[in-house]
Amino acid sequence: MDISTVIGLVVAMVAIIGSILAGGSLMIFVDVPSVLVVGLGLIGTTFIKWPMESVKSIVQIGLKSIFATPADAKQVILKIKDLAELARRESVFALEKAEIDDPFMKKAMTLAADNRPPEVIAAILQMDIDSMEARHTTGADIFGGMAEDGPAMGMIGTLIGLVQMLQNLSDPSAIGPAMAVALLTTFYGAIIANVFCNPIKNKIKFRSADELTAMNIVVAGTLGIVAGENPRMIIEKLSSFLPPAERNIGEEGGGE
Amino acid sequence: MDISTVIGLVVAMVAIIGSILAGGSLMIFVDVPSVLVVGLGLIGTTFIKWPMESVKSIVQIGLKSIFATPADAKQVILKIKDLAELARRESVFALEKAEIDDPFMKKAMTLAADNRPPEVIAAILQMDIDSMEARHTTGADIFGGMAEDGPAMGMIGTLIGLVQMLQNLSDPSAIGPAMAVALLTTFYGAIIANVFCNPIKNKIKFRSADELTAMNIVVAGTLGIVAGENPRMIIEKLSSFLPPAERNIGEEGGGE
Amino acid sequence: MDISTVIGLVVAMVAIIGSILAGGSLMIFVDVPSVLVVGLGLIGTTFIKWPMESVKSIVQIGLKSIFATPADAKQVILKIKDLAELARRESVFALEKAEIDDPFMKKAMTLAADNRPPEVIAAILQMDIDSMEARHTTGADIFGGMAEDGPAMGMIGTLIGLVQMLQNLSDPSAIGPAMAVALLTTFYGAIIANVFCNPIKNKIKFRSADELTAMNIVVAGTLGIVAGENPRMIIEKLSSFLPPAERNIGEEGGGE
Amino acid sequence: MDISTVIGLVVAMVAIIGSILAGGSLMIFVDVPSVLVVGLGLIGTTFIKWPMESVKSIVQIGLKSIFATPADAKQVILKIKDLAELARRESVFALEKAEIDDPFMKKAMTLAADNRPPEVIAAILQMDIDSMEARHTTGADIFGGMAEDGPAMGMIGTLIGLVQMLQNLSDPSAIGPAMAVALLTTFYGAIIANVFCNPIKNKIKFRSADELTAMNIVVAGTLGIVAGENPRMIIEKLSSFLPPAERNIGEEGGGE
Amino acid sequence: MDISTVIGLVVAMVAIIGSILAGGSLMIFVDVPSVLVVGLGLIGTTFIKWPMESVKSIVQIGLKSIFATPADAKQVILKIKDLAELARRESVFALEKAEIDDPFMKKAMTLAADNRPPEVIAAILQMDIDSMEARHTTGADIFGGMAEDGPAMGMIGTLIGLVQMLQNLSDPSAIGPAMAVALLTTFYGAIIANVFCNPIKNKIKFRSADELTAMNIVVAGTLGIVAGENPRMIIEKLSSFLPPAERNIGEEGGGE
Repeated sequence: MDISTVIGLVVAMVAIIGSILAGGSLMIFVDVPSVLVVGLGLIGTTFIKWPMESVKSIVQIGLKSIFATPADAKQVILKIKDLAELARRESVFALEKAEIDDPFMKKAMTLAADNRPPEVIAAILQMDIDSMEARHTTGADIFGGMAEDGPAMGMIGTLIGLVQMLQNLSDPSAIGPAMAVALLTTFYGAIIANVFCNPIKNKIKFRSADELTAMNIVVAGTLGIVAGENPRMIIEKLSSFLPPAERNIGEEGGGE
Repeated sequence: MDISTVIGLVVAMVAIIGSILAGGSLMIFVDVPSVLVVGLGLIGTTFIKWPMESVKSIVQIGLKSIFATPADAKQVILKIKDLAELARRESVFALEKAEIDDPFMKKAMTLAADNRPPEVIAAILQMDIDSMEARHTTGADIFGGMAEDGPAMGMIGTLIGLVQMLQNLSDPSAIGPAMAVALLTTFYGAIIANVFCNPIKNKIKFRSADELTAMNIVVAGTLGIVAGENPRMIIEKLSSFLPPAERNIGEEGGGE
Repeated sequence: MDISTVIGLVVAMVAIIGSILAGGSLMIFVDVPSVLVVGLGLIGTTFIKWPMESVKSIVQIGLKSIFATPADAKQVILKIKDLAELARRESVFALEKAEIDDPFMKKAMTLAADNRPPEVIAAILQMDIDSMEARHTTGADIFGGMAEDGPAMGMIGTLIGLVQMLQNLSDPSAIGPAMAVALLTTFYGAIIANVFCNPIKNKIKFRSADELTAMNIVVAGTLGIVAGENPRMIIEKLSSFLPPAERNIGEEGGGE
Repeated sequence: MDISTVIGLVVAMVAIIGSILAGGSLMIFVDVPSVLVVGLGLIGTTFIKWPMESVKSIVQIGLKSIFATPADAKQVILKIKDLAELARRESVFALEKAEIDDPFMKKAMTLAADNRPPEVIAAILQMDIDSMEARHTTGADIFGGMAEDGPAMGMIGTLIGLVQMLQNLSDPSAIGPAMAVALLTTFYGAIIANVFCNPIKNKIKFRSADELTAMNIVVAGTLGIVAGENPRMIIEKLSSFLPPAERNIGEEGGGE
Repeated sequence: MDISTVIGLVVAMVAIIGSILAGGSLMIFVDVPSVLVVGLGLIGTTFIKWPMESVKSIVQIGLKSIFATPADAKQVILKIKDLAELARRESVFALEKAEIDDPFMKKAMTLAADNRPPEVIAAILQMDIDSMEARHTTGADIFGGMAEDGPAMGMIGTLIGLVQMLQNLSDPSAIGPAMAVALLTTFYGAIIANVFCNPIKNKIKFRSADELTAMNIVVAGTLGIVAGENPRMIIEKLSSFLPPAERNIGEEGGGE
């Protein structure tokens, strides 16, 4: 679980809800028509902007950015080390039966066990990497688009409320509450954009870079295993993907 | 028909109109002079910004982005497969009489049947691709320009309404309705930009990429047919244009 | 005459003036001090931003974008065809006396008639092309700068009006008209930016691309004439500068 | 003196001050605390943004953009011509004693008189060019930063004034003047950004390009002199740095 | 200590606090719930946007930009000169025991004393440089993100205050103070963005470029020492990293 996303969402919601409760009831900030105009409007514009299949994937991408454990390059390298030692001890064919959680690494090892030529393995895995990157880029773009459309639908909702209020000023005591309700859609739009969509877009971009590193490690490691390289050598090479402070994986200094 | 664009437009309009009806009559949001200043103003600035022929094409491009069935790369590959088998079974000249809906594929096959050299076929088809891309880029730019001009004309309309109202404050009961009407142009501008122009601009860009892929498949397929390649081989090569999950076209694994 | 720019300006002005007249007199939108602060302010910032010679050229560039007949690549090619046939029939020296309206084409043909080496002709003409592009880029930038400064001066004018009104609230009946006048500078700024400067900037960019194409056709055509190529061949080569739909110039299909 | 900058500043100030005087006294637009919050705030953020030495240079860069005579490429070429003729008539060593106002040209000629190898001369002069460009880029960036910070500090000042006014509504007659004063910081910020910083940033960029051209002419000219080229040849080569319309420097057509 | 950052922060705070005190008490600008909604909201969105380890480093990066003495390229070169002379006088191994404050230079000299091949030294030091640059880029991006989120959370806080005030207009005397408090979050957001985050982001970028220069000097100097070059030669080469005005380090003119 990506603990910083969860902490961030909780802290931001506590700040906003706490600030509301400090001044009165939470209920005056809930208005069903206002929720509908912003929510449905945002769904509508998102459907216009993107093809069906992209829209469908957005919930999954959003949840993943919140709950998925981020790829840990160090763990990936250690797992590759185990697999390289297994391939050395037994043979490349033993990789077929190795227990591997990550489907991409599983696929890479199956290809290795199938004795495919290295350039074929690299090409097939690269397609998966490209596809992951395209999916994440579209995901980040969709969240970025919603961060623009949320406040836009909020403003449209507020304009509707203002026009209706201004057309009916006969009861002065109704003006305040009517304006309050009109402002709610702007409030919803601001929260959608600034607390959810923009931050999640940023996290998706960051995660995509992490995942790319992890996948590149798997590709480099698999090619090393297929080439029958020494596991120690493989690990040393892979550790160049890590930030300097974490490179002491093999318990040896970064020798030549 | 591009179902997601239609769904999106319907959902967004339902959200906005529903929100209006929840608070009163739809009629207070209709004001003919306000419609005219935003609508004509937007038409005016678009005519200044672009040459005549681009302006003329904009309605067609907009409707196409809403109603055209998006190019399906998989169907294009399957059709190419049929044509490749036809050319194999009979001869390249049989392509002339094949029934083909897509005018670009029709043109490609006619060129193949005419026994033109491959580099000539590629050059002629590339011109059509460049022309399609230029047309879509201009289309997206025009919608993007209208997404800027809509709110700008809306603000101009609102300023006109405010100045007139402020010059004539003698009847207090008229102030509210006058301001309501003044806000309508801002409301129209916001809807034009955020519900129509910006989302359609995004969809056009996305569609353009899809169409580019489909056209590149046709070019690669035609060159394969002209070179007398095995249909199975052609399909395998073309499937690299598809996302990994859809590459099992020939019912064979992605072999070497 | 660039008909779309003229139509656009007329339609936009009709929209705005019509909207004003629908609600009252046009005179309440005319205020001399407001015109002066926005107009002189805009002239001032433009003088600070650019050197004298660029500022001087801006009126000419603006009028040209409105009234100049856009370069028509097809007509240019047809004229080159005539000249190529003339050079064939008589000799290159006959080009000197040919009647040519476009000064750039005139210069190119004079250079050809002078029997200058092709690389010298190309270099001299390229300098004129570069200079035309630099002039248009600066022109578009100046209009873009005015589209930023217009609303800025409008806001400064409105702030002046608001401060003066707020300092003098003793006569309540004067507040409305004072605020109305204060808003006029914002109104002027919005029109300057959105109806004039931004759209004209866009048209200049588009025209620059058209003129570049026309000039490149002249260069390629002149070099063809100097090389003594067949007029039919020259036309065929030049037609690749046209969009596909217009390439049937020589009444022959686009052969190899 | 850069006459267009001076004219621009005068015209813009006349527009603003005239507009103020047309509506009342200039004194209601002067408020010392408001001047201090915007002025000191702007100085503060500029100090945080940039290192000490850059901040120190900003006044000099600003004044230079206003008062310095812009580099005139044509004069530079004519001066180089004189020096080239001097070097021909006497010898390269005579350049040492030639009277040269421009310190960069002086340095170039001293290097030539010292009989340094051409590549050393070019390398040393290039360092000065790079340094000039870096200084101008930083200068333009500092003015750009102040164009952002001016309105920001203006908004902060206005918020301070609004909060204080709203906390103390007991005397209705004080509300107007208090709001007027609160708006002054926004007014100052808008003028700082739109009349001074942004236009001067633009002029610095333009001047930097002019100065770059002049310095490149000096480098090319010095290398020509060192190589003992014919003065007429040097001038012809250098004139390619000028816009076409001004290339008739040597009173000869632009021959091959 | 980076004196310009400290001066800037002090001047900006004096401007703002002075402006507040000139108009009343400082206490009306302190409101705990408003501080919490902006502060916690900003922390929340920052946690969502970035992974845990980046968020942790932000306080350190911010403080460093304020208090760290900026890298002085000239001092670095002089220190390298001392070390180069030491290595000449005694031997490369003496570098091990030299007293060096800067950990990066210490590491470089230790590598040199270990007699590592030059390409290994360069590769290891480059990793540290890349890592420094990535850390600074992320640091600048985090401050840039907070400069967007501060005003956003400020607007959300103000909307909360406005809605609560509008729902409860029964006591007219409470309206002013309620609006004043509502505006405080916008005020906090503007200060966070414009006085702290944006300026510090700019300073980090500038410092990163300085540090990069210093580190590159260390790498070039170390390679010179390892190659056994003459200290005078090393210094002359390194001085090309300095701006021209400071290049007289070796007390000799910039000879060939």
